[in-house]
Amino acid sequence: MEKLVLASGNKKKLAELQNLLAPLNIDVVAQSEFEVPEADETGTTFVENAIIKARNACKYTGLPAIADDSGIQVAALRGAPGVFSARFAGVGATDEKNNKLLVELLSDMPEVNRDARYVAVLVLMTHEDDATPIICQGTWDGEIVLEPQGDQGFGYDPHFFVPEKGCTAAQLPAQEKNAISHRGKAMEKLLAQLSS
Amino acid sequence: MEKLVLASGNKKKLAELQNLLAPLNIDVVAQSEFEVPEADETGTTFVENAIIKARNACKYTGLPAIADDSGIQVAALRGAPGVFSARFAGVGATDEKNNKLLVELLSDMPEVNRDARYVAVLVLMTHEDDATPIICQGTWDGEIVLEPQGDQGFGYDPHFFVPEKGCTAAQLPAQEKNAISHRGKAMEKLLAQLSS
Repeated sequence: MEKLVLASGNKKKLAELQNLLAPLNIDVVAQSEFEVPEADETGTTFVENAIIKARNACKYTGLPAIADDSGIQVAALRGAPGVFSARFAGVGATDEKNNKLLVELLSDMPEVNRDARYVAVLVLMTHEDDATPIICQGTWDGEIVLEPQGDQGFGYDPHFFVPEKGCTAAQLPAQEKNAISHRGKAMEKLLAQLSS
Repeated sequence: MEKLVLASGNKKKLAELQNLLAPLNIDVVAQSEFEVPEADETGTTFVENAIIKARNACKYTGLPAIADDSGIQVAALRGAPGVFSARFAGVGATDEKNNKLLVELLSDMPEVNRDARYVAVLVLMTHEDDATPIICQGTWDGEIVLEPQGDQGFGYDPHFFVPEKGCTAAQLPAQEKNAISHRGKAMEKLLAQLSS
């Protein structure tokens, strides 16, 4: 069984990836099991930040690593918060604070386009100097609602209305969300590439 | 007609891209028509270097930009020269010097695996802060021959033997090469994405 490090401390992501890759005989372990200093996410694109995190994990573990970078792009905010989604209201901001800022900004623009898109990029690097990482991107289109609804998921989910489901992402059970979400789609592509 | 800057000074690449994108009503112009300082290719992956070049062109022209980064990976050299292909024998090295170094290194390893892979990554960014550039990768498998053959193409082409054609890349007419090459495949993917 091949070992793969996940460059993230998120336990939900770890479990998700473990389930996905177990059939391929790939054992996903958390980066927290090693001494890996935090990487500096200096990229202006999701893929650059995912590469920075994956390369960092490879470097300090000597193992292949996978990283994801994701965020939300809001049309009325010209694509913001984008790569800054997790730190929209400041470094270390909670989901609550980030969502509050988003709602405040959009409340001041009553007639704007509230279209939004979730983006996830997954990167798999075999080693620190891997020049051709596997890159898989998934997107999920929806629109921002000012009133939060639902208590599942995380991030901007309570404000991300999914027209095809008639509810927000936070109102969808995990399995239903994963089947259509940005991360779910990126994962599906990764699985297809690893299987072939 | 939409304008797109090519972040390269290579006239062959410009002509190739102009031909490819003319049917989509996209006018490709060379970055040399603007004042664009050279970008520092600090990436360890092809995609990072292509992003660096495309972002730099967007920044200084205010237009959408496309960049490519490409190179060759040789199995016996553990993937080298990779992202350093154009500067394998030193910054500003000629194709001749790079090829000479490659042949010297492999001559010292008579029984090694001479499998090689050309890689090209194309990146299209709509603006400097575009967090989700279009990324298209193409690869081309072959093997290194120590005796150069053919005088077409460029780079490592005279030493890149293409089994399916029974000759080197430098012995293929441009059109025939473009139909199966790493760059040709990446271009095809780009065209498909832009058309949809």
